[in-house]
Amino acid sequence: MDNKHTSINLNIRGIGQSPTLRINELSNKLQKEGKKIYRMGLGQSPFPVPVPVVEMLKNHAHEKDYLNVKGLEALRKAVAHFHRQKDNLQIKPENVLIGPGSKELMFLLQLVYYGDIILPTPCWVSYVPQAKIIGRNIKLIHTTFEDKWKLTAHQLEEFLRSENDRFKPRLIVLNYPSNPDGETHSAAELEKIAKVARKYEMIVLSDEIYGQLHYAGKHISIANFYPEGTIVSSGLSKWCGAGGWRLGTFSFPSNFEWLLHPMASVASETYTSVCAPVQYAAVSAFVGGIAIERYLMNVRRILYSLAKKCVEILQNGGIRVHMPSGAFYLFIDFSNFAEKLNKKGINGSPALCEKLLEETGVAILPGSVFMRSEEELTARLAFVNFDGSKALAMSEAIPINEKFPDDFDQHCCNQVIEAVEIIVDWANK
Amino acid sequence: MDNKHTSINLNIRGIGQSPTLRINELSNKLQKEGKKIYRMGLGQSPFPVPVPVVEMLKNHAHEKDYLNVKGLEALRKAVAHFHRQKDNLQIKPENVLIGPGSKELMFLLQLVYYGDIILPTPCWVSYVPQAKIIGRNIKLIHTTFEDKWKLTAHQLEEFLRSENDRFKPRLIVLNYPSNPDGETHSAAELEKIAKVARKYEMIVLSDEIYGQLHYAGKHISIANFYPEGTIVSSGLSKWCGAGGWRLGTFSFPSNFEWLLHPMASVASETYTSVCAPVQYAAVSAFVGGIAIERYLMNVRRILYSLAKKCVEILQNGGIRVHMPSGAFYLFIDFSNFAEKLNKKGINGSPALCEKLLEETGVAILPGSVFMRSEEELTARLAFVNFDGSKALAMSEAIPINEKFPDDFDQHCCNQVIEAVEIIVDWANK
Repeated sequence: MDNKHTSINLNIRGIGQSPTLRINELSNKLQKEGKKIYRMGLGQSPFPVPVPVVEMLKNHAHEKDYLNVKGLEALRKAVAHFHRQKDNLQIKPENVLIGPGSKELMFLLQLVYYGDIILPTPCWVSYVPQAKIIGRNIKLIHTTFEDKWKLTAHQLEEFLRSENDRFKPRLIVLNYPSNPDGETHSAAELEKIAKVARKYEMIVLSDEIYGQLHYAGKHISIANFYPEGTIVSSGLSKWCGAGGWRLGTFSFPSNFEWLLHPMASVASETYTSVCAPVQYAAVSAFVGGIAIERYLMNVRRILYSLAKKCVEILQNGGIRVHMPSGAFYLFIDFSNFAEKLNKKGINGSPALCEKLLEETGVAILPGSVFMRSEEELTARLAFVNFDGSKALAMSEAIPINEKFPDDFDQHCCNQVIEAVEIIVDWANK
Repeated sequence: MDNKHTSINLNIRGIGQSPTLRINELSNKLQKEGKKIYRMGLGQSPFPVPVPVVEMLKNHAHEKDYLNVKGLEALRKAVAHFHRQKDNLQIKPENVLIGPGSKELMFLLQLVYYGDIILPTPCWVSYVPQAKIIGRNIKLIHTTFEDKWKLTAHQLEEFLRSENDRFKPRLIVLNYPSNPDGETHSAAELEKIAKVARKYEMIVLSDEIYGQLHYAGKHISIANFYPEGTIVSSGLSKWCGAGGWRLGTFSFPSNFEWLLHPMASVASETYTSVCAPVQYAAVSAFVGGIAIERYLMNVRRILYSLAKKCVEILQNGGIRVHMPSGAFYLFIDFSNFAEKLNKKGINGSPALCEKLLEETGVAILPGSVFMRSEEELTARLAFVNFDGSKALAMSEAIPINEKFPDDFDQHCCNQVIEAVEIIVDWANK
């Protein structure tokens, strides 16, 4: 494309030419050539939206009014209730903000708040492009395989001390269970991080969009330890399978009116309010109930079982990976194969993923997309290429206190298993 | 609110404290005190979403996938078809961008395009705050009552010549039929403006969200005269009554890939894609058909009849106003009463609207909100405070080639008539 004679915001030029796009384009090209592609790139829940939530959308299809910019009152109450019941948090409905996806709310936050953005890596793919578009400073803190890709309080404090400015306005984003690695923090770890955040008066954006996909149903929020400085992010996209519906939530501390208010003002000048029928439907998701809990229990045990199976295969094949605590990602490390890969001309994660895709049809995302250095041989695998409706129906037929039969994963999710086996074979070839 | 110790983007501080908000707060306060309020402030269609479109939303309630960032292919085809059929425009589906409201798309456009924003006034309320948030220059061109609040090609050329820089990147926004005045340009006028735009190589954002609410069904797009430089904006909010659903469309010239592409990139880092069930439903709205045409014919004749009635009452009462060509607004001018109002301490539109509301319960928006000078005694009246479903049902019962009975407006829209009579009485008191 010839951009020579055009006039584009310089923060935006070149955005979007990401390795994700390259992997997608290459996938499409190979598929057109007749190659079988295992799509493990996009992080979309494979499960359907729970039936009662879909029914509510139908029942409210005629709702046509512009709703309050901060969100439907019943929904804000339901979100407060959800966090009280699930996370033991005291959130006031008037401090909840509903947006068309938590990604959009995150963008508004970065646009409105004037401060540096601190990101432990590996981190989700959109935080950094957002900061670039707006022109914010990004400070990365790289975690290690040995720490299970988790930021430690010690690391955080070291970094902050090095900046020589205790009260610089800062926003740190913590995402747990995490995209891209499914790891989560223990209560003790969160408490220590909270202590550092409090000392430096940082804002914590706690991205808990995968909280309800903690396999043991035991997600803990850092807002329990730092209620006065934590914004809790959630939404329908992951635990409720409704990514395409576009509904996210931010829950603010009571003393954050100074930030919530201008965010709502910018919302009113941009997306206005979230789709009315979807907001009515979302009430039923956040209020919850037996049907939703049953759905979650089945979703969790399917994901747990599949994660365990994949980790086994990968570890047996020499690929470094931790068993995740939740969500549907594995962050895998090929460093045991570095020498062999280097000989093939593979010197980093983008080349690793391109070569893997070309040679095997398995599409995964390079670690560099998650802000790891390009030389590192890491990648994210989203184990979502299976029929979630079928898996859910099969799981529902098995009493919740019984174990899955040994062939459950093979039966429900054979494409995932096949792809993971292909990865191992390829690495060892 | 104490913002002293907070860190907020300076472009955003103070945004949202608009007269619209003040009028709304005052309305709520007076209503709580037991006063009857005529809400003619918010510009929302009073009509329901057409039945086949609501049915489509129900049928697609289960759709949960993230759709393409630019929009569902079937919808982009339907929008191209719509503009071909309605506006005689040749738009390619691949040049259509779907967003969560045309307001959000407008924001993306201002964010991505680096150029000055030219606005004829009176203009819609959100263009200027968006430019302020992003930090763009705004250049206002004030139109006159005598020109029916329409920008002339001569005015535009004068302004551009005065800037001494022919090829400065510029974006002009034209909105017709217009919010806040319902006026529209003739083909000859558009052709002249197009000639100037071409000479200066300006981008025209043609906001045609009210196009299908042209009373005679004869909306003409400037893209017919300046296809290579016009972006046409539309959406479901006004002609389809679905403001709360949040779906807008931008249709780009074929040579605008340089702009569409980065806008889509920013979309993918913000709202991601538009609500999937709503996109499926919107296909039926843009494809159209007999049910939609019938709906539009009835909506148009109801609005036309009511506009005519209101204009009659206002003009007979000495208030200056033009009969609009479409939409559901009147931009009224109290300058005939300037002396009398000044004596009451009313020296501009904000005071005018506050006093009117306090003394009569009629809530309308001051001309200053639409970027007219504060001293001017203008205001926008949205004649939408009636039961659109009832009016539609009554209109449908009358053959389309027959005239409405004389008491139709009084019967269907008595609150509107009452409020307009109150305004006249108040001005003449």
